[in-house]
Amino acid sequence: MAKEKLVEQITDMETDFAQWYTDICRKAELVEYASVKGFTILRPYGYAIWENIQQIMDGEFKKTGHQNVAMPVLIPESLLRKEGELVNGFAPEVAWVTKGGSEELEEPLAFRPTSETMFCDHWSRVLHSYRELPMLYNQWCSVIRWEKTTRPFLRSREFWWQEGHTIHETAEEAEAETAQQLKCYADFFENVLAIPVVPGRKTEKEKFAGAEATYTCECMMKDHKALQGATSHYFGDKFSRAYNVTFTGRDNKVQYPFQTSWGSTTRMIGAVIMAHGDNNGLVLPPKIAPIQVIVLPIAQHKPGVLEKAQELVDRLAKLGLRVKGDFTDNSPGWKFANWEMKGVPLRIEIGPKDIENNQCVAVRRDDREKLFLSLDELDTKVPELLDAVQKSLYEKAKANMEEHTYPAYSLEEAKKIQEEKGGFIKTMWCGELACEMKMKEQAGMSSRCMPLHQEHLADTCPICGKPAKHMIYWGVAY
Amino acid sequence: MAKEKLVEQITDMETDFAQWYTDICRKAELVEYASVKGFTILRPYGYAIWENIQQIMDGEFKKTGHQNVAMPVLIPESLLRKEGELVNGFAPEVAWVTKGGSEELEEPLAFRPTSETMFCDHWSRVLHSYRELPMLYNQWCSVIRWEKTTRPFLRSREFWWQEGHTIHETAEEAEAETAQQLKCYADFFENVLAIPVVPGRKTEKEKFAGAEATYTCECMMKDHKALQGATSHYFGDKFSRAYNVTFTGRDNKVQYPFQTSWGSTTRMIGAVIMAHGDNNGLVLPPKIAPIQVIVLPIAQHKPGVLEKAQELVDRLAKLGLRVKGDFTDNSPGWKFANWEMKGVPLRIEIGPKDIENNQCVAVRRDDREKLFLSLDELDTKVPELLDAVQKSLYEKAKANMEEHTYPAYSLEEAKKIQEEKGGFIKTMWCGELACEMKMKEQAGMSSRCMPLHQEHLADTCPICGKPAKHMIYWGVAY
Repeated sequence: MAKEKLVEQITDMETDFAQWYTDICRKAELVEYASVKGFTILRPYGYAIWENIQQIMDGEFKKTGHQNVAMPVLIPESLLRKEGELVNGFAPEVAWVTKGGSEELEEPLAFRPTSETMFCDHWSRVLHSYRELPMLYNQWCSVIRWEKTTRPFLRSREFWWQEGHTIHETAEEAEAETAQQLKCYADFFENVLAIPVVPGRKTEKEKFAGAEATYTCECMMKDHKALQGATSHYFGDKFSRAYNVTFTGRDNKVQYPFQTSWGSTTRMIGAVIMAHGDNNGLVLPPKIAPIQVIVLPIAQHKPGVLEKAQELVDRLAKLGLRVKGDFTDNSPGWKFANWEMKGVPLRIEIGPKDIENNQCVAVRRDDREKLFLSLDELDTKVPELLDAVQKSLYEKAKANMEEHTYPAYSLEEAKKIQEEKGGFIKTMWCGELACEMKMKEQAGMSSRCMPLHQEHLADTCPICGKPAKHMIYWGVAY
Repeated sequence: MAKEKLVEQITDMETDFAQWYTDICRKAELVEYASVKGFTILRPYGYAIWENIQQIMDGEFKKTGHQNVAMPVLIPESLLRKEGELVNGFAPEVAWVTKGGSEELEEPLAFRPTSETMFCDHWSRVLHSYRELPMLYNQWCSVIRWEKTTRPFLRSREFWWQEGHTIHETAEEAEAETAQQLKCYADFFENVLAIPVVPGRKTEKEKFAGAEATYTCECMMKDHKALQGATSHYFGDKFSRAYNVTFTGRDNKVQYPFQTSWGSTTRMIGAVIMAHGDNNGLVLPPKIAPIQVIVLPIAQHKPGVLEKAQELVDRLAKLGLRVKGDFTDNSPGWKFANWEMKGVPLRIEIGPKDIENNQCVAVRRDDREKLFLSLDELDTKVPELLDAVQKSLYEKAKANMEEHTYPAYSLEEAKKIQEEKGGFIKTMWCGELACEMKMKEQAGMSSRCMPLHQEHLADTCPICGKPAKHMIYWGVAY
């Protein structure tokens, strides 16, 4: 009956990438399926990653004047229906509350799939004057979308996110906000998650329901599939008009403000797993790792070892690092495997011989490089090593993306590259939905984005031969 | 059509305390009613208070080894029904999701009113060995209880809270956790919210549905009514048995862990308003104030004033204080009233004469004391003043509570004190429900708690005359 806990083998990513991913999610104790179909539980280690993401990202939002709020989780059906495109986009995925206590509700209430409608409803009642603009709001919460399939972090009926919602006096200001927040996400992916991105604009087909324009950060996983990292939307004054959000302008006339929204989700954790993980488990960028350094005593029964290991823990903690000592009676081999599975960026080993030599052993999680560090220089070397791991993860992810981004000059070529290599395939595009659909049908790829950084690959759309309007990225996406 | 924004008068608390409270909630822009009946919106200023509360409290939880997680928001009806007392306690207040997308659900899903059931369900699948105990979990989220009436922060269908859930190897450890978390709350109320509390145990009638014992921090508002501040529950192994949560013990036999839960909510903001506010508006303890110091330039059109004011803002920000300069073109009088309404603990004014004299004027929000501070000693004096405000708020709240706590030796006396003065009324009690009900029916008071610190007031219960078992506090509560 004793249920023993082991560090179990995970599936190799080359054998079955999807199974490898699920194995990591569960065996690194990030997430567990709930008994409610389609729902997942963020366990302490997974949630700690999310907390680190939240803390850093929230700080960035606040630097540019954004404020957090909390809007109601339930939205009356009539309110949701005021903006036709949005409700049509989300209606098939909405969970409905129809009963409160013992009473059947007169009007069903939607569990928010997104909160544009609630923000607009609130603004319609509190906004008065241009002096109060912009209103730069954000909230951290969970949303529900009634998906058919479940994959931890990537697709679940409930997920955790932040949703930014802002209103501005002019279209230009709102457009600048949309761009600023896209850049904020791109910087976050690159500097914090160590994942390079292609920032760009979504096509009409792929944009957010109700938005005038949607921008995205697209990134590439180790299986060369694409993942949409975060999105930033410009709404013009469409929702303002639908929800009667008005203000008195500088000209003393009633005007409609211009609106944006932007969001990022726990999906980012899925991106981190698939961008950096390996066959030994999770590999975490130091900036978001719940434990940045694990200290392991070697031959811990020998006198002085545990004390010295604890001393190292205390010393590194004083530097502001997230450090933990594993002083359990598990074997060193088990501990190595366990903390590798959990993706801790740096392992420090200290045993009797190291103590004699006033040194310790440091092993990087990313490349398993083993170094002897003098204890005298620990305080500088450990932060340097963590920086090096952070940079190296980014460089490797960047090389992966660059090596698997291919130009294509015909539909056939695009199809062939996709079948043989995967990755991002860039072509010119006429801008027509028909060609986008044809690429999907024949090469199995959706449009990822029209990158902000445009290249001129040819004069014509390789699908229809008409004049090209944009350079566009295609891919198979999560 | 121009909707102008003014600092409006609020109702005096002596005239109508309930209206005074609502006025502050809305005019200090803490909270707004949503268009969904029974739901409220936490606006940026209100949410910023909540963020400060969260940050400090979360830090305290983590110091004692608690970890945050995220559990699903929806609970299947069958799962909720496994523990009879809990579901009977909450069923009348549950909101039900019955439809997901276009499909009618086979089983209704409850929007969590509290998450004991979800934690137990999870633990039943992940707990294996005594080595994994204790599991010390917490989550910050919102819950729904379908209340009939709405009062901002005090009673609304959705509210924000933290719910701690832990399991332990032994009853003693779980009981110690319950006590530790009660003390954590009591310290938080006193040291952070500047509100003194009476910690104690709830009666059988008032305890949490399904708990073996419920402990509470009771506090007193300025109208001498009681408010339950936060609660800590001990469950024994009742839920473990109901949900089949087991582990292999040290004796290699299957055992049931012992469980606790403990929670505190956005209600704490309501407590802060009613414990410290005055007829000019909100009065915030510096430790949770979103803006601790507001810097106001006087005669700001005069050369050098704005620059000097900005210099003070920068200087105080460097000390780690939350400081803001109001450089709008509103009149100084408007600004004084506005920032008093918003409860900013310290106002600093600087004008041409002050600059000449190398000084500024500091005005405390709590007692409006006005001091001249030399700019040379700003860096030490401002933090000192904030500490003084924090302490003084606590002392005043403590005096209020002590002055309005009365012993009573008969039901008639208790009733008379309640009618004439309000406050906490302490008596002995036999421990019988009948006497508790009689106090409620005849004196309109519910039992608040049996304080941890017991006093011997008499030998018998003043209601029935039988031997007394406890000293108990009574009051009219929010």
